[in-house]
Amino acid sequence: MSNATITVLPGDGVGPEVTAQALAVLGAVEEKYRHTFTVHERRVGLDAIEAEGTAISDDTFETCAHSDALLFGAVGSLPAGQTRSGGPRPEQALFRLRKEFGFFANLRPVRPFESLYAASSLKPEHLKGTDMLFVRELSAGLYYGRLESVPGKPSEIRRTARGTEAVDTLLYTEEEIERVVRAAFEIAAGRERKVTSVDKANVLSSSVLWREVVERVAADHPTVTFEHMLVDACAMRLIRTPADFDVIVTENLFGDILTDEASMLTGSIGMLPSASLGARRTESGMFGLYEPVHGSAPDLAGQDRANPVGAILSAALLLRHSLGLEQEAAAVEEAVEYVIREGCRTEDIGEGVHAVVGTREMGRRIVDRL
Amino acid sequence: MSNATITVLPGDGVGPEVTAQALAVLGAVEEKYRHTFTVHERRVGLDAIEAEGTAISDDTFETCAHSDALLFGAVGSLPAGQTRSGGPRPEQALFRLRKEFGFFANLRPVRPFESLYAASSLKPEHLKGTDMLFVRELSAGLYYGRLESVPGKPSEIRRTARGTEAVDTLLYTEEEIERVVRAAFEIAAGRERKVTSVDKANVLSSSVLWREVVERVAADHPTVTFEHMLVDACAMRLIRTPADFDVIVTENLFGDILTDEASMLTGSIGMLPSASLGARRTESGMFGLYEPVHGSAPDLAGQDRANPVGAILSAALLLRHSLGLEQEAAAVEEAVEYVIREGCRTEDIGEGVHAVVGTREMGRRIVDRL
Ligand SMILES: CC(C)[C@H](C(=O)O)[C@@H](O)C(=O)O
Ligand SMILES: CC(C)[C@H](C(=O)O)[C@@H](O)C(=O)O
Repeated sequence: MSNATITVLPGDGVGPEVTAQALAVLGAVEEKYRHTFTVHERRVGLDAIEAEGTAISDDTFETCAHSDALLFGAVGSLPAGQTRSGGPRPEQALFRLRKEFGFFANLRPVRPFESLYAASSLKPEHLKGTDMLFVRELSAGLYYGRLESVPGKPSEIRRTARGTEAVDTLLYTEEEIERVVRAAFEIAAGRERKVTSVDKANVLSSSVLWREVVERVAADHPTVTFEHMLVDACAMRLIRTPADFDVIVTENLFGDILTDEASMLTGSIGMLPSASLGARRTESGMFGLYEPVHGSAPDLAGQDRANPVGAILSAALLLRHSLGLEQEAAAVEEAVEYVIREGCRTEDIGEGVHAVVGTREMGRRIVDRL
Repeated sequence: MSNATITVLPGDGVGPEVTAQALAVLGAVEEKYRHTFTVHERRVGLDAIEAEGTAISDDTFETCAHSDALLFGAVGSLPAGQTRSGGPRPEQALFRLRKEFGFFANLRPVRPFESLYAASSLKPEHLKGTDMLFVRELSAGLYYGRLESVPGKPSEIRRTARGTEAVDTLLYTEEEIERVVRAAFEIAAGRERKVTSVDKANVLSSSVLWREVVERVAADHPTVTFEHMLVDACAMRLIRTPADFDVIVTENLFGDILTDEASMLTGSIGMLPSASLGARRTESGMFGLYEPVHGSAPDLAGQDRANPVGAILSAALLLRHSLGLEQEAAAVEEAVEYVIREGCRTEDIGEGVHAVVGTREMGRRIVDRL
């Protein structure tokens, strides 16, 4: 029996709908396994900007800080015209959470279900045997050029007499690289013992340093094989020979692009969960933020059409990594796989299926199976 | 009848083998259509570093400058350990050519042949109707953080008492964005009249400026529809719904990653040609550099195994864009498509084919068809 505090941040667009299903699953786990989960729900993103004037309030931040885990939905994007207005932007909630809680490792498992091969644009023979885990660096790189408080990392648009120019800075310290690469090797040691490190070392200085660090860390893990791969080559191999990968570790923006690409192997980005972890521990695991890989999808919002599986599998990762409840996590994953194998489909994975179900029905079936 | 001077830079690895076939095709065109092509062959890349101590000599550069077009093979990578040695790097040849000749627009057409659907890892129903053209910005961005001569654009590894860090700078001026975006809209006006501009405006300042410029240029092209797409979303859509794209314009590194990914639609990166163009004109077209998208593939070198189609289709682009020989370009493209439809396959596209042919045989058949 476990007691845990979870802060829920549903956010914008389809965020609240998919998060509701993930919460229902956590409720079912709580009951079945007799745990007590204390849940605090708070606003983030556009929702928070409208209600509280900021993408995430200090108050919400405090609540998060006193939890064992954070369950996150999605945050919206401002319309194009507004990105340069200088006001608060919804993504800042995510950036602040990632940065201030030190979530440097973003885990994104990609394991296509055989029963969903029909939903993927790839041929089944290319999907067979695919089971990879991305470890995306989440706390540095081009994403944090905007933090003016960090000297030497500008991100700005300069309007001068000579004309307008814009600059972003890709900066990595050795330590920022090392901690995420170490995490990747440790995880690989418990899997197929293979690490692919992705960079652009033929162009970027930060990638040259990245390679140096990887080689040093690799020397400490003689039982794990590793390879360097250029990001452009990796973008090919993910589609061509996805089964060759085990653990893929890469910097922030490369990880963003490659994981979205790889999501297509599973049939839909709606299937993918993620866990963001740092150095802070909870009583029985790591403090972490759990969110589906998909975004807020405003065009689907409020229509009971989004796929809740990414959010539900994120809840499974929460049980595993933050609460140390491996059996419960596995039970949720089994329930998801069962329901999908039985033919239950939301529209995003509904290729060739007669009747697709809505967000709530998909969630209900998974809860029932539990 | 046309007189033209072409400088050929075969480079490393499979570069010389595929370039030889492209040259054979140009020779056949010369004869059949009674043109006179004066060809100068020069060293670049590792080949030049070994023979001349630099990735591209000033002398070679001069020869290039006095040509109508450059036919480029591929340049190798130094082994990982050597990237940080500080000595000349083979890629510098490419960077210097791109930068000093002002080749800011890199055109990469992706049009999978129906007869090669079997070679692609994508399902045929997803490939159907795909015909897209990437316009990759080639003269700025993270690639040129290394040029120490440009102030405010550092790319370096700093080893200080506080520790080691590495920095790369992503800088775009409005002018650098505008010229390539304008090129994309102009090209789109002669195609399906649709531009997809790819950026990461929810994170990067340079992307926010990119969007501003695109909107301004779009206003000058009311008959062309356009959309903004985030790079992560684009990495998905390229596999999911590739037929939806017409012209895709994006910054340097995004273009590098996305075009390699998109090459998988055609079955192999060995199929893809490219043209790099700037502002300089020739007598009947644009001065340009033409190269297959694939790299030097050292593991295949010297074995008559590489696919020469990317190089041959690059020669077709050379005929079209630099020499103004549209009919000849179309004839080369038709010959390639014919030979492939007839079942001729190098090993990279040989999925399910009994006997594959070598580099030379593939070239010979295309020449024969001409
Ligand atoms: C919303 C956006 C800023 C975010 C990112 O780029 O990190 C998203 O794409 C992700 O992958 O979590
Ligand atoms: C060789 C390498 C530097 C080059 C690049 O990244 O531009 C290549 O990948 C390309 O796409 O032309």
